[in-house]
Amino acid sequence: MPPPIASSKGQHTRAVILDAALSLATQVGLEGLSIGVLAEGTGMSKSGVFAHFGSREELQISVIREYHHRFEQEVFFPSLQLPRGLPRLRSLFELWVTRIAQELDAGCLFIGGAAEMDDRPGPVRDALAASVSLWLAALHRAVTQAQAEGHLPADWDAHQVTFELHGLVLALHHEARFLRSASALTHARRGFERVLGQRA
Amino acid sequence: MPPPIASSKGQHTRAVILDAALSLATQVGLEGLSIGVLAEGTGMSKSGVFAHFGSREELQISVIREYHHRFEQEVFFPSLQLPRGLPRLRSLFELWVTRIAQELDAGCLFIGGAAEMDDRPGPVRDALAASVSLWLAALHRAVTQAQAEGHLPADWDAHQVTFELHGLVLALHHEARFLRSASALTHARRGFERVLGQRA
Repeated sequence: MPPPIASSKGQHTRAVILDAALSLATQVGLEGLSIGVLAEGTGMSKSGVFAHFGSREELQISVIREYHHRFEQEVFFPSLQLPRGLPRLRSLFELWVTRIAQELDAGCLFIGGAAEMDDRPGPVRDALAASVSLWLAALHRAVTQAQAEGHLPADWDAHQVTFELHGLVLALHHEARFLRSASALTHARRGFERVLGQRA
Repeated sequence: MPPPIASSKGQHTRAVILDAALSLATQVGLEGLSIGVLAEGTGMSKSGVFAHFGSREELQISVIREYHHRFEQEVFFPSLQLPRGLPRLRSLFELWVTRIAQELDAGCLFIGGAAEMDDRPGPVRDALAASVSLWLAALHRAVTQAQAEGHLPADWDAHQVTFELHGLVLALHHEARFLRSASALTHARRGFERVLGQRA
């Protein structure tokens, strides 16, 4: 059993590398990540980085997990504090679009990564798709809970609602980040109210 | 003045290279394009490709223009044959989503390219953004025409409608291509009817 101090230091170093890797990935993409570039960025030796992430693929997958973890912390868990149904669904959407509006320079790894990885089969793509699917499943669950609570009509297709909410987020990301549209966040929020409110 | 035959041959060669470049770009991205890779793919010499496209950047921009041209031919011009208003708007959307569903393997250059280029300022990004903006402006015009024809309520915000239709297309591209969802096309079509029909 390694002494606790060394282990804690090792974990800290890993976290520092992962943080740098995540910044790098949101700038140059998951495919732009490499142990060499990361060593340069963190001032470590290649073998030092390699000791924590045995391969480029392991590094890429660890970055996806770290992004997923932060997304949960910022969007998912705070929303669980709110009552089931519309309050929780609204919070999930609002924290999601706020996050996207805030990370405009970096871009969302779930969205940018999807475009990058969608024609590159393999474990990295699978990890990213699993992560996105998990998040969309959570959103879908919030929709069905809102139906169960009587906040949304029971006969609505929850998959259709989830698809449309996802579309609003993707349009926000595309139009605010790529087209530099200043009104995209407003359109996304109004879209949310319309999807949920005006077809009752 | 060069003899017509030589000129026509030159144009043909340029078209062949451009066709190969477009296929390549939808697979490896605009940034993956290079004169070297393209020469290899077409069996030409690097200097041969270089004679038609003086730089990598010129090649990338030519590919965007060619994609734009094909998009116009397949989606925009056929829709102009239909009466102004809802018939034309419906055709624009339907031909657009059909095209995306058909090019699932290749991906849409407008969407994939946006995610790739959104943090790479320069003439290539500008060319792509201009192309996408032109297309979204055409969609917006179709919405306002539908309002002028009395097919849609005059007090609707046409930018909001355009944003939501764009979102449906982006969700189709993301969920069908990245998540391999079989129902995405159905959701996109139902979304169109819902955006336009159920808030009158």
